Amino acid sequence: MKTLQDKIQAEAYIIDDRIVKVDHFINHMLDTSLIFEIGKEFAKHFSNVTKIVTIEASGIAFAVATANALNNIPIVFARKSESLITSKDVYQSSVYSFTKQKESIIIIDKKYINEFDHVLIIDDFLALGNAAIGLIDIANQAHASIEGFGVVIEKGFQNGRERIESLGVKVVSLANISKINNGKITFKN
Amino acid sequence: MKTLQDKIQAEAYIIDDRIVKVDHFINHMLDTSLIFEIGKEFAKHFSNVTKIVTIEASGIAFAVATANALNNIPIVFARKSESLITSKDVYQSSVYSFTKQKESIIIIDKKYINEFDHVLIIDDFLALGNAAIGLIDIANQAHASIEGFGVVIEKGFQNGRERIESLGVKVVSLANISKINNGKITFKN
Repeated sequence: MKTLQDKIQAEAYIIDDRIVKVDHFINHMLDTSLIFEIGKEFAKHFSNVTKIVTIEASGIAFAVATANALNNIPIVFARKSESLITSKDVYQSSVYSFTKQKESIIIIDKKYINEFDHVLIIDDFLALGNAAIGLIDIANQAHASIEGFGVVIEKGFQNGRERIESLGVKVVSLANISKINNGKITFKN
Repeated sequence: MKTLQDKIQAEAYIIDDRIVKVDHFINHMLDTSLIFEIGKEFAKHFSNVTKIVTIEASGIAFAVATANALNNIPIVFARKSESLITSKDVYQSSVYSFTKQKESIIIIDKKYINEFDHVLIIDDFLALGNAAIGLIDIANQAHASIEGFGVVIEKGFQNGRERIESLGVKVVSLANISKINNGKITFKN
């Protein structure tokens, strides 16, 4: 998505060869116009979706815009918890965050995802794919069909895409960073 | 807002005389059409707003819809942290959650809120008003103008509104629950 790649190229703060900061338009302050362009772009790549699934907090804005572009289908966002929940009412999966250096449990109430759902999973960032794989795990526990995973920014130099595709899930990223080098970002394609 | 009140009346789970659960359309699964109706409704009550301020996670969807209805102005969402941040780059405030029975620190980067901003604070629930008061505190630290506080559901039998209005901030709620009694919800007006 050209608008997004141009904005990343012009405005991202490059911390080192692995980390770019985009928290002034993606995950702390949000560029509302861009969010809705992103939602429309995801909608072009997926049909037959009945529900958007994401994870709190940074995925929610993109989930809302994508759901809006797909005829206002419902959204479910997984909640994060410090510990395993001993309830038969929820699906849960364990997700390790390298950014935060900790394991968290993500949870979706069993009432809100089921075998009739065709879910599109949406998130802001893809690096190692742990969050997405946790959401795929939950969708599989619910016997939902997974139509794909849409992610705003992919770090193409990490192996998240391969891990997710090996589970049979289609991955669409709108900006795929293949390299960060000497303060310069290179995109795939 | 009639659509919202009708939906709460028909679908909310009443836990006891103080607690209603609406997590199947407000704060776990989201009714996308309703979110955008809510955004349009908030937009009618506030003009002269340049930025939406909210708090992760449940406020974000309503912030996105409201920002969209106000010509796609930017959004900033406060992040929650376990502990005080020792950085001169952030504004922070302490918020006690009765639901979670714990104190958390909410944080906004100083780059994303300043004295030129006219902020509208958006959140999903108002009870004692602690989260909103934390966001007002941060807006005041940044010398931003506060145009008001828009909240989806108010528990009118608790004192959040009085506490916020006493700070000189206009409060608009779209469904104001004045009483929950014997499994029946009564709205103000």
